[in-house]
Amino acid sequence: MRFQAPESLSEQIAQHLGQRIIEGGMRPGERIQELKVAGDLDVSRGSVREALLILERRHLIHIYPRKGAVVSGLSPELVQHLYDIYSGLLIMLAQKLAVTWQDKDLEPMARQVQWLLERIDAPDVTTPEIVQGGFEVMRLGYQVVGNPFLQETLENFRPAISRMYFLALQQYGREKAATREFFHQLLIDVYARDHGAIENTIRRFREHQLAIVLDTLKEDASLTSSVTS
Amino acid sequence: MRFQAPESLSEQIAQHLGQRIIEGGMRPGERIQELKVAGDLDVSRGSVREALLILERRHLIHIYPRKGAVVSGLSPELVQHLYDIYSGLLIMLAQKLAVTWQDKDLEPMARQVQWLLERIDAPDVTTPEIVQGGFEVMRLGYQVVGNPFLQETLENFRPAISRMYFLALQQYGREKAATREFFHQLLIDVYARDHGAIENTIRRFREHQLAIVLDTLKEDASLTSSVTS
Repeated sequence: MRFQAPESLSEQIAQHLGQRIIEGGMRPGERIQELKVAGDLDVSRGSVREALLILERRHLIHIYPRKGAVVSGLSPELVQHLYDIYSGLLIMLAQKLAVTWQDKDLEPMARQVQWLLERIDAPDVTTPEIVQGGFEVMRLGYQVVGNPFLQETLENFRPAISRMYFLALQQYGREKAATREFFHQLLIDVYARDHGAIENTIRRFREHQLAIVLDTLKEDASLTSSVTS
Repeated sequence: MRFQAPESLSEQIAQHLGQRIIEGGMRPGERIQELKVAGDLDVSRGSVREALLILERRHLIHIYPRKGAVVSGLSPELVQHLYDIYSGLLIMLAQKLAVTWQDKDLEPMARQVQWLLERIDAPDVTTPEIVQGGFEVMRLGYQVVGNPFLQETLENFRPAISRMYFLALQQYGREKAATREFFHQLLIDVYARDHGAIENTIRRFREHQLAIVLDTLKEDASLTSSVTS
């Protein structure tokens, strides 16, 4: 248990807006008007501007000079690029982990994977619970690897990846087997310090998830056409 | 030639402060006081806060809740972690490039490498010129690969890597042969679409540069001990 400092106001605003983007309440291409957000949330325009910089860092919006902030697009190409870099970073993390782990370093992670494999079949399991549980495995990896730059870079991609999970939520029921297999196999690969196997396991899961997200986008064409309001 | 929109005020402040950090005018661990910067530059405190968020994204400072902004440290471990992720991202870019290039895609990059190999031996060459020329090769790579997330992530690391170059500036004269060999070999590897060779070439150059930076840090112990003002 660690004492957690309360978030700054701009961080709170960023999380509020970020959650709306992740859950689809704000659509791809939608403009975010600083003044309107400031009025709606009863905060200063300066705090909103800071929140927008945080959201841009987390790949959820783009800020155009003098044009303002716009929710990031969801074209099939962008989604593919997102999964490309995210899986590349995960491979980097897992391969570093494979090199650095010693003694009982992997035990917290093994326990978390074990919990995940059990929960995934529980009748009362929820998708966000499994998604959070998966990210928690990644976070336990940071602690062993100890590279703050890799951690920060991966954490900055987490909201955009959460947005993908949310998008493919309905299909996610079908994903239990693949998710179970992924975490089970990845842990084995890291224990075996097998760089090639790590890359294959992550790439396979990436292809799998990407296919689901692309299917969802195809079914809902309104998501890929940019709103220009 | 493209029309370049003038930078926002917060971006200008970020570049000004960033340059001072890169060139060593602000030391590792030094606190950045919002009010003082706002007074010195005659800008609003809000613009300084936005600039600090931009600098944090570029890995040059850390912002601690309620404690404020501090120039990033330069311990040997941090430097090693920085080179780890940066070279990992470069490998990702070069391997993607190896997969995607077609026809004459690589020609602008080959011309830039050719220019670099010629300039590097010119009597009037400057180190910043070669560093910029090297980054330009990377930028030509983005255009072929077309992944905006990878581009953004690499660009965000550029200032911190520039800081390393600046640190090792004196030794850089000795580096001509290694730099020449690196760009020459990398281009060959990408043309050959040889993933293993790409990884080896980038890792070898990484080890080389890292050793120089670590030597410099050892010679100037004041750089690694954090200032706590």
